[in-house]
Amino acid sequence: MSLDAFWSGFGSPDLLQAIGRSLAGLPQPPRRIAVALSGGADSAMLAVHAAIFARRRNLELHCFHVHHGLQAPAERWQAHVHDLAQWLGVPCHSLVVRVDTASSAGIESAARDARYDALGQLAERMALQHILLAHHRNDQAETVILRLLRGSGPGGLAAMSDVTHRQGVTYLRPWLAVDRADILAQASQFFLISGWGPVQDPTNADDKYTRAAVRERLVPALNERWPGWQGTVTRHARQSAQVQEVLDEVAAQDFAGLAPDPDGISFSLAAWRLLSVARQALVLRYWLSLHGVRMPTEARLLDIMKQLRGLHAMGHDRQMQVKHGSVWVRCTRGRVWLDTGQGA
Amino acid sequence: MSLDAFWSGFGSPDLLQAIGRSLAGLPQPPRRIAVALSGGADSAMLAVHAAIFARRRNLELHCFHVHHGLQAPAERWQAHVHDLAQWLGVPCHSLVVRVDTASSAGIESAARDARYDALGQLAERMALQHILLAHHRNDQAETVILRLLRGSGPGGLAAMSDVTHRQGVTYLRPWLAVDRADILAQASQFFLISGWGPVQDPTNADDKYTRAAVRERLVPALNERWPGWQGTVTRHARQSAQVQEVLDEVAAQDFAGLAPDPDGISFSLAAWRLLSVARQALVLRYWLSLHGVRMPTEARLLDIMKQLRGLHAMGHDRQMQVKHGSVWVRCTRGRVWLDTGQGA
Repeated sequence: MSLDAFWSGFGSPDLLQAIGRSLAGLPQPPRRIAVALSGGADSAMLAVHAAIFARRRNLELHCFHVHHGLQAPAERWQAHVHDLAQWLGVPCHSLVVRVDTASSAGIESAARDARYDALGQLAERMALQHILLAHHRNDQAETVILRLLRGSGPGGLAAMSDVTHRQGVTYLRPWLAVDRADILAQASQFFLISGWGPVQDPTNADDKYTRAAVRERLVPALNERWPGWQGTVTRHARQSAQVQEVLDEVAAQDFAGLAPDPDGISFSLAAWRLLSVARQALVLRYWLSLHGVRMPTEARLLDIMKQLRGLHAMGHDRQMQVKHGSVWVRCTRGRVWLDTGQGA
Repeated sequence: MSLDAFWSGFGSPDLLQAIGRSLAGLPQPPRRIAVALSGGADSAMLAVHAAIFARRRNLELHCFHVHHGLQAPAERWQAHVHDLAQWLGVPCHSLVVRVDTASSAGIESAARDARYDALGQLAERMALQHILLAHHRNDQAETVILRLLRGSGPGGLAAMSDVTHRQGVTYLRPWLAVDRADILAQASQFFLISGWGPVQDPTNADDKYTRAAVRERLVPALNERWPGWQGTVTRHARQSAQVQEVLDEVAAQDFAGLAPDPDGISFSLAAWRLLSVARQALVLRYWLSLHGVRMPTEARLLDIMKQLRGLHAMGHDRQMQVKHGSVWVRCTRGRVWLDTGQGA
C-alpha cells in the first residue's frame, strides 16, 4: 500500500465516524486537537485514525506521550511512540512524570492524577484544549463492574464519560461504544503496512491490580456465558449517566427551593421536611457536595435525616448538631447549616 | 434442649429483629401472616424464626407450600415441609402448581408467576394479606449481577424490594440484608435439636440456569477476590431503589406539567420541549409505562425524541408518527398522543 493509498484508504469507517461525531458534538469544534498516545494498540490506532481524520478535515493534530520516568522500559516506549508519530507525520511531545507512590489516595489514583497533570501541561504548552482518549467498550464495561464491586453507588455506574473537563482541558472518548476487537483488527492491518506494532499498553498500569483481577477472574466467564455483555453493560453506563443528569438537575432545583442563603451554607428545615424521603437524602448529598464535603455513609446520612426530622419544623427552641468528618451539620432557629470550622 | 427452652431460647436475635422491623414498617402491622416455605434452608429458618416471633407477639402464623406437581421429588418435599410445620405447631397449606412450559415469556417467568398465583390463592383461602419470603443478601447480590448482565437498566439494579404488592397480597422480604451464612448456622443448630434438615431449595429452580451460571462461574471469583461483595452490591440495590423513587416522583411531576388530557393519552409538545433532554426521555418512558406499553429500546426512544424535537414546537401544520410495537406515537396540532389502536 502506497502512502497515498494509506491516507485515502486505510482506517475503519466506523472508527473514523466515531471521532467525527465526538468532535461535532462539541459546542465549538476545535481546529487543534491532541491524542494521548501510550503506545498500546488502542491509543496507537486512535492516533492513526485521528491522523487520517485530521488530514481530511484539515485539523492540526499532536500526539502527547506521558513518559513514566521510573519504569525501566519507559525509554523504549517513548522511542517507539515517536516512531509511530513520525510515520504519521504528526508532531509528538513527551513529558516525564513521577508518581507519588506515598500518596494517601493510593498509587492508582496518584498515577492517574500524574498522567492528567502531564497531559494538561502539554496541552497548555501547545495551546490546545482538546485531547482524545482511546478508552473503548471493553474498558467501559470493566469499569462498570469495578465500580459496582467498589460500591461507587448508582451514579458511579455511569463509568467514563464521552466528554470530561479537567483543569481547562476537554477530554473526549470517541470510542467508548467501540468493541476492542475492531481496534485490534486495525492494529494488525496497520502492522502489515507500516511494520509498526503496539507495546503492552502501559496506561493500564494505573489500576492494574483491580482491573487485572476483573480481566483474569471475571471476564473469561462473562465472555463465555454472557457473550455481548460488554455492550449490555456499556448501555447500562449510558443509562446511568442519563439518570445522574436528572438527579443532578432535580437536586439543584430542590436545593434552590429550600431558601438557601447566598453561599448555600444553610437552608430551611421546614422546606426540607416537605420533600419526599428520597429527595431529602438527595438534596442533603447535593448540599454536602456543593461544599466539597466527603459523602457520608448510608448510616450517617440516615442518622442526620432522622435527627432533622425529629426537630420541630419551625422549632426555634430546639437545636441539633452532628459531626461528620471535620465538619458539623447544625440546626438552629429553623435553619440547617454547615459548620466547616472556617468561621461561620 | 426442651421444647420450652426452644421457644424461649432458640433463634438468632438479628434474624428475629429483622422480622420485627419488617412488620413494624407496615402502615398497619397484621395479626395473621404466612411464610412461603419451600423446604430449603432459607425458608425453613424463616418459618422457624417466624414461629418464634409469632408466639412471642401472639400472631397467627401459617406456612404456605407450593407443590411443583410435575417434579418427581415434589411429594417428598411436601411431606418434609409438613413435618417441619408440625414440629413447630404451625398449620401448613399446600397447593399444586403446573408450570406452563410453553409460555412465551419463558419457563423461568412462568414458574415464578405460577408460584405467586398459588401463594395468592392460599392467602385468599386463609384470609390473610401478608406473606414473608426468605430471600437474603446473597440472593439479592446475585440478582443485581444478573440484572446488570441482562440489561435491566439502572432501575433494575434496585433488584428485590423489602415490600412488594401483588394481586392484593403484600410480600415482605425481612432478610434481604442478612448474610446466608447466618441462616445456615441456624439451620445446623436446628438440625441438632429437631433432627429436621432442609432439602435442596426447589424455589431456586425458577431461573436455575442463569442464576446457577452466576453462582458457578462468577461467585467463587467474587468471594475470593472481593470478600464482602454481597454487602457492597446489596447496598447498591438499596441506593438504586432510592434513585428509582426519585425518578418516579420526578417523572410523574414532569408529566403533570405537560398539560396531559384526563386519560394521560396525550400531552403538549411545547411543554415537553422545555424539559432537559434527560427528563424528556424520562417522561416519555413514564408516559408509555402509564399505558402498559413495552419499553422502547434506547435507539427507538432516541428516534422518537429526535422526531418530536424536529417538529415546530407549536407546529399545527406539521405531523409525525412513529410505530412502536403495536402502538403509534403521533403528534398533531401540538399534542403528542398514543394511538393504541383501540379507537382514539
